[in-house]
Amino acid sequence: MRIMLIGYGNVGKCFHGLLDERREFLTRRYGITPKVVSIVDRGGAVIDPKGIRCDEALEAKRKFGTVAGLDRGRRGMSAIEAIGEVDCEVVTELTPSNLADGEPGMSHIVEAMRVGRHVITANKGPLALALPALLELASHNDVKLLFSGTVGGGTPFLNFIRKCLKGNEILSLRGVLNGTTNFVLSTMERKGRTMEEALLEAKDLGYAEADPSLDVNGLDAAAKLAILTNVALGRRVTISDVEVEGIAKVSRRDVSRALDSGMTIRLIAEASHEFARVQPREISREDPLCVYGPLNALSLVMEGEWQVTLVGKGAGGFETAQALVRDLVELKESLTSTYSTLKIEAYER
Amino acid sequence: MRIMLIGYGNVGKCFHGLLDERREFLTRRYGITPKVVSIVDRGGAVIDPKGIRCDEALEAKRKFGTVAGLDRGRRGMSAIEAIGEVDCEVVTELTPSNLADGEPGMSHIVEAMRVGRHVITANKGPLALALPALLELASHNDVKLLFSGTVGGGTPFLNFIRKCLKGNEILSLRGVLNGTTNFVLSTMERKGRTMEEALLEAKDLGYAEADPSLDVNGLDAAAKLAILTNVALGRRVTISDVEVEGIAKVSRRDVSRALDSGMTIRLIAEASHEFARVQPREISREDPLCVYGPLNALSLVMEGEWQVTLVGKGAGGFETAQALVRDLVELKESLTSTYSTLKIEAYER
Repeated sequence: MRIMLIGYGNVGKCFHGLLDERREFLTRRYGITPKVVSIVDRGGAVIDPKGIRCDEALEAKRKFGTVAGLDRGRRGMSAIEAIGEVDCEVVTELTPSNLADGEPGMSHIVEAMRVGRHVITANKGPLALALPALLELASHNDVKLLFSGTVGGGTPFLNFIRKCLKGNEILSLRGVLNGTTNFVLSTMERKGRTMEEALLEAKDLGYAEADPSLDVNGLDAAAKLAILTNVALGRRVTISDVEVEGIAKVSRRDVSRALDSGMTIRLIAEASHEFARVQPREISREDPLCVYGPLNALSLVMEGEWQVTLVGKGAGGFETAQALVRDLVELKESLTSTYSTLKIEAYER
Repeated sequence: MRIMLIGYGNVGKCFHGLLDERREFLTRRYGITPKVVSIVDRGGAVIDPKGIRCDEALEAKRKFGTVAGLDRGRRGMSAIEAIGEVDCEVVTELTPSNLADGEPGMSHIVEAMRVGRHVITANKGPLALALPALLELASHNDVKLLFSGTVGGGTPFLNFIRKCLKGNEILSLRGVLNGTTNFVLSTMERKGRTMEEALLEAKDLGYAEADPSLDVNGLDAAAKLAILTNVALGRRVTISDVEVEGIAKVSRRDVSRALDSGMTIRLIAEASHEFARVQPREISREDPLCVYGPLNALSLVMEGEWQVTLVGKGAGGFETAQALVRDLVELKESLTSTYSTLKIEAYER
């Protein structure tokens, strides 16, 4: 299976490394022989039908700041140009998320599908902004669009919804979808810290970016909620349909007051067939959503008040790369199966 | 799809009710038109190729104490006799679990597979005692054996393992697999009750059987652990390979001492490639396994210390019946798919 990587940051490197490392396992167990035939980063592209190894790409990146530094590299070549030139089955889009207009990922995904490539992406931006349209485009071009790395890369929320709840109807969902804010809130609670102190600690531990504003203002959680709402509830929503309130106003006093009454404050993302919103909420300390540190959690409520909760890591580079590998396996299986379940993945579980 | 029900207690009735209720949905969404062509209970059997409705079976059960009271009923007919006579695709085995020798479920499952029927069961006994052998028998007879109702009927643990963790290797698992003991331990903790008091409360609320000894002595959890260990770790174990210690020796003082140090006592079932055991353990109150009331939880640990936890209801009649419906959908899909993933379900994820 010939793969093109667009974006070669932490996730891209991890994914490439995993492919090289698990090649034999993937071949033996799933009949997939992955070959990375092109990589594009900000400095240009490299294209090689014989395959590009992770170690050489990393070395070029280190030495020259771009994979285009490789001997067969093409400095200045854009992803769109490369998509037009590369012969491959799958394009993996792994550029940074942009929740304003989804670029450059949006254009990459659209162009890749237009020329008939299956797309696997971990890029929340384009999906939060336009998942319904992108799925229609995938269907129109008869390609698959897989995106389990966009929500809880470390915990397979989307696959759980699609595969483990068949025969049931999901009525609503409630989750802790942002690890950074959960670390901040639970650290304020456990250690009596102010938000500023807790944020500093999160940065020190690598749980927050240098600029954590998309975490703090709730937009990262809202992007994930938009994607989940499409998949779990079959509602064609985008991030603009989500009411959002971040954690900026949560004070140390709010947190300790909640604690005194057996409750805890978490940034809760929730959606039903009527609403979709993200806001700090008091929940019981016995609620399965009361998770600590950088964990994520998602509760799904079905008919008969039946509820299931999935808890696990949010997305680090390694976790997201694992999700991409799972999507690759999924893609392979769907291509060799006679009945294609993936094409309509979001709206029919 | 012609279905035979063996065992018509709470689970059997709920399952039959769900099939009647969701017939249209199942047909439309999955192409399954379920028809119950035979029911067997302790008093005898009823066989009708045209189908038996839930309301008439319930009425016969109420009036005569057995479904054999129906006009086309056969008083005194055994399940084994009925299996030989009934033409159907699936036998659902729903008699009470027996962890000593697995009977009568064991004989029913073996006979059904012998005559070429697929089997869906919620009966832990035969599987805890002989899952490796039963899976071989299924493979030998070229039929499917589905059993997601045996472990956490209310939470799809087995399907999660089989379907959502592809491409990863599970190294160990730890779980709270018995709702009754979890209710007892968390009630001792929350309300300062003794075990006897908490058990009485559990019975009042319907969370414990009249005789809760299999819960208290840890055998119910051990049975589920044996099944999970086969599926998650690919180890061919049975309940006799599980070291078991129940909660009988846990005192109110143990519970409050744990609480004082930020810990909590739970009946933990755990297995790796080296061991399988059930015993009361102190765990952190921040551990996702620290669930309250009758909930179940299961953490799976994969390479790179990657951990995912699933939390939900244990098995009530309704939850188990739902799991049976999901197995039916699964069976149907596997039969219409070209590549059969289910045949080797336990040992190859």
